[in-house]
Amino acid sequence: MERRTFLRTGLALGAASVGGGIGLLPELARAVPRRSADTLRLSSNENPLGLAPAARRAVIDGISEANRYPDEARDEMVEALARLNGVARENIVLGCGSTEVLQMAVQALATPDARLVLAEPTYEDVPWYCEPFTYRLERVPLDARFAHDVGRMQERAESAGSRALVYVCNPNNPTGTLTPSAEIDAWIESALEHVYFLVDEAYFEYCKDPGYWSCVKWIAQRPNVIVTRTFSKIFGMAGMRLGYALAHPETTALLRRYIGRVNANYLALVAGLASLRDPELIPRGCDANARGMRILYDCLDELEVEYLPSHTNFVMHRIRGDLRTYRQRMSEHGVRVGRPFPPMLDHSRVSIGLPEEMEQFADVLRTFRRNGWI
Amino acid sequence: MERRTFLRTGLALGAASVGGGIGLLPELARAVPRRSADTLRLSSNENPLGLAPAARRAVIDGISEANRYPDEARDEMVEALARLNGVARENIVLGCGSTEVLQMAVQALATPDARLVLAEPTYEDVPWYCEPFTYRLERVPLDARFAHDVGRMQERAESAGSRALVYVCNPNNPTGTLTPSAEIDAWIESALEHVYFLVDEAYFEYCKDPGYWSCVKWIAQRPNVIVTRTFSKIFGMAGMRLGYALAHPETTALLRRYIGRVNANYLALVAGLASLRDPELIPRGCDANARGMRILYDCLDELEVEYLPSHTNFVMHRIRGDLRTYRQRMSEHGVRVGRPFPPMLDHSRVSIGLPEEMEQFADVLRTFRRNGWI
Repeated sequence: MERRTFLRTGLALGAASVGGGIGLLPELARAVPRRSADTLRLSSNENPLGLAPAARRAVIDGISEANRYPDEARDEMVEALARLNGVARENIVLGCGSTEVLQMAVQALATPDARLVLAEPTYEDVPWYCEPFTYRLERVPLDARFAHDVGRMQERAESAGSRALVYVCNPNNPTGTLTPSAEIDAWIESALEHVYFLVDEAYFEYCKDPGYWSCVKWIAQRPNVIVTRTFSKIFGMAGMRLGYALAHPETTALLRRYIGRVNANYLALVAGLASLRDPELIPRGCDANARGMRILYDCLDELEVEYLPSHTNFVMHRIRGDLRTYRQRMSEHGVRVGRPFPPMLDHSRVSIGLPEEMEQFADVLRTFRRNGWI
Repeated sequence: MERRTFLRTGLALGAASVGGGIGLLPELARAVPRRSADTLRLSSNENPLGLAPAARRAVIDGISEANRYPDEARDEMVEALARLNGVARENIVLGCGSTEVLQMAVQALATPDARLVLAEPTYEDVPWYCEPFTYRLERVPLDARFAHDVGRMQERAESAGSRALVYVCNPNNPTGTLTPSAEIDAWIESALEHVYFLVDEAYFEYCKDPGYWSCVKWIAQRPNVIVTRTFSKIFGMAGMRLGYALAHPETTALLRRYIGRVNANYLALVAGLASLRDPELIPRGCDANARGMRILYDCLDELEVEYLPSHTNFVMHRIRGDLRTYRQRMSEHGVRVGRPFPPMLDHSRVSIGLPEEMEQFADVLRTFRRNGWI
């Protein structure tokens, strides 16, 4: 094991002597490209803390069971999530990431005349999943607060009289901004049954605003509300692919018609279960994020660069010139930042890394300023 | 780490001291049910050797990256699979297990008047995925050889003139039997374009019969042939959820419209890549399987129990009386065996464990015989 990897697993692993000769694909042994250790990876809203120590340990303990189908661990996870969220097992649907639950919703709710009403910009997976279906996409620009324009979305959803799937990512990605939960509640309260709310709460744990709360409160009574959560963000498990939906049992039954059988990886399940038992995981993640965010804000303030105050683990800030050039220059300075999010092409999205990484990023921004690039 | 788990990871891991207190869900710490170490798990066609040593090592090395989305590892895997199978990257679609690829095929090929033509019994996932669609299911009993009845399947598929999705699991699960590849080839050769072949080769590596070969040879020319493979069986990665399809680029493009975004777990990818580089993995798995199979056959021969000679890592044998009672008794003797596979309810499916496990299973069978239960 390379020394660096050894240290980064965060566990004292003895020096292992394992066979593992080069065989079937000998040329692969050297062909494997490695991520550069020097690149600052601030493009994908990943949690830089990585898996929790208890989750790392659970993965290692779990290796000897990874040849078995994960039915029991799956049951344990459903039970744990039900308990965590104060709901019944029937309210939970696991996904291969929350994206699979988004996919199930799109598939389960498709009708020939359905509409998908969503903000612009917002997370791209839902419109992507709509592509093979006849959904009519209704993109409603974020309002002046960079919140979902609930009034206009409601108008678009309810004017047709046919089914509408309303996608609400709150806090929103890629903007990091909040839509006041009271506004969403008011709409759900009055909404017709044929309006389905798919509420993506991927960044739920990061958001401390008193005007923000979960839509889970609706699922007991309203089959037309689906909430999604993920282990990819605060739990630091983006590569492990585990997420879930919370919904009324009628609705989870509908979603499960489109589920992938055995869609959750055993090691993801044991890592997730260990993470749920770690009382420090969420505070630790939020604290590291807040420190990294502070460093970024201070630098952006110092340089007088406009940005959208964020309720997540990423921030959108203004750039000068075109985004492609900006990202290319960032890349040349060893920083990977977020892709283009039309129509906000005068902004760049940067994810919050470790505090020391954000210091490095701030230095790059200062260099950019000196060069007149920002 | 429990001593047993410590040993079973197959790696010399130092005794780790990790925080991991009990927190969010304190009651879970004790509530976690554990699989009984004394149960012989012979129900799910899992590879008892577990992950290859190199794959175990790759998982441990990969933990520090499991908080990152796995795009690069995914690219490496597609490249490796293309090379392994002598095809292009465009011919490969990764799945969260091969089951996700089966799901994509069912979804992508659904039409209002489509038929699904399949053997009875065969693997259940494909008809399960058909359930929300208007597929008309045409179940064709296996023939006297317990092979697919290609003639009758062809008749059912081609009589309607509308699209037919033909599912061929070869070797077949749950019977372990073979359909001669020449018979499948002859049909594909003459088949109309609206007949799609979904050929499940999950047990491909186990089958040594000279009358068996892959349907991959067809994909260059025939967009209506889809072959699926998995890391769950010979690669011992059932819990890791990784499989793939091999098909014509037109067809992979169609399948990808229904893919789950980021459907492959990072640790599964690195474990899979390490497994592909291990030249001993397949011979080792086949050898252990053959030894276990020999022990089972010898016992069944000794007891004069009828069975279907198998081309896989499981065997169907005759039972007396009803399957529910048989399985219950097996469970009381610490053995988990396969579920009911209608209409073959006078047979039980047993997976091949380690040779020593098969000795134990043989002893249980002898006990059953003494009790008049078999």
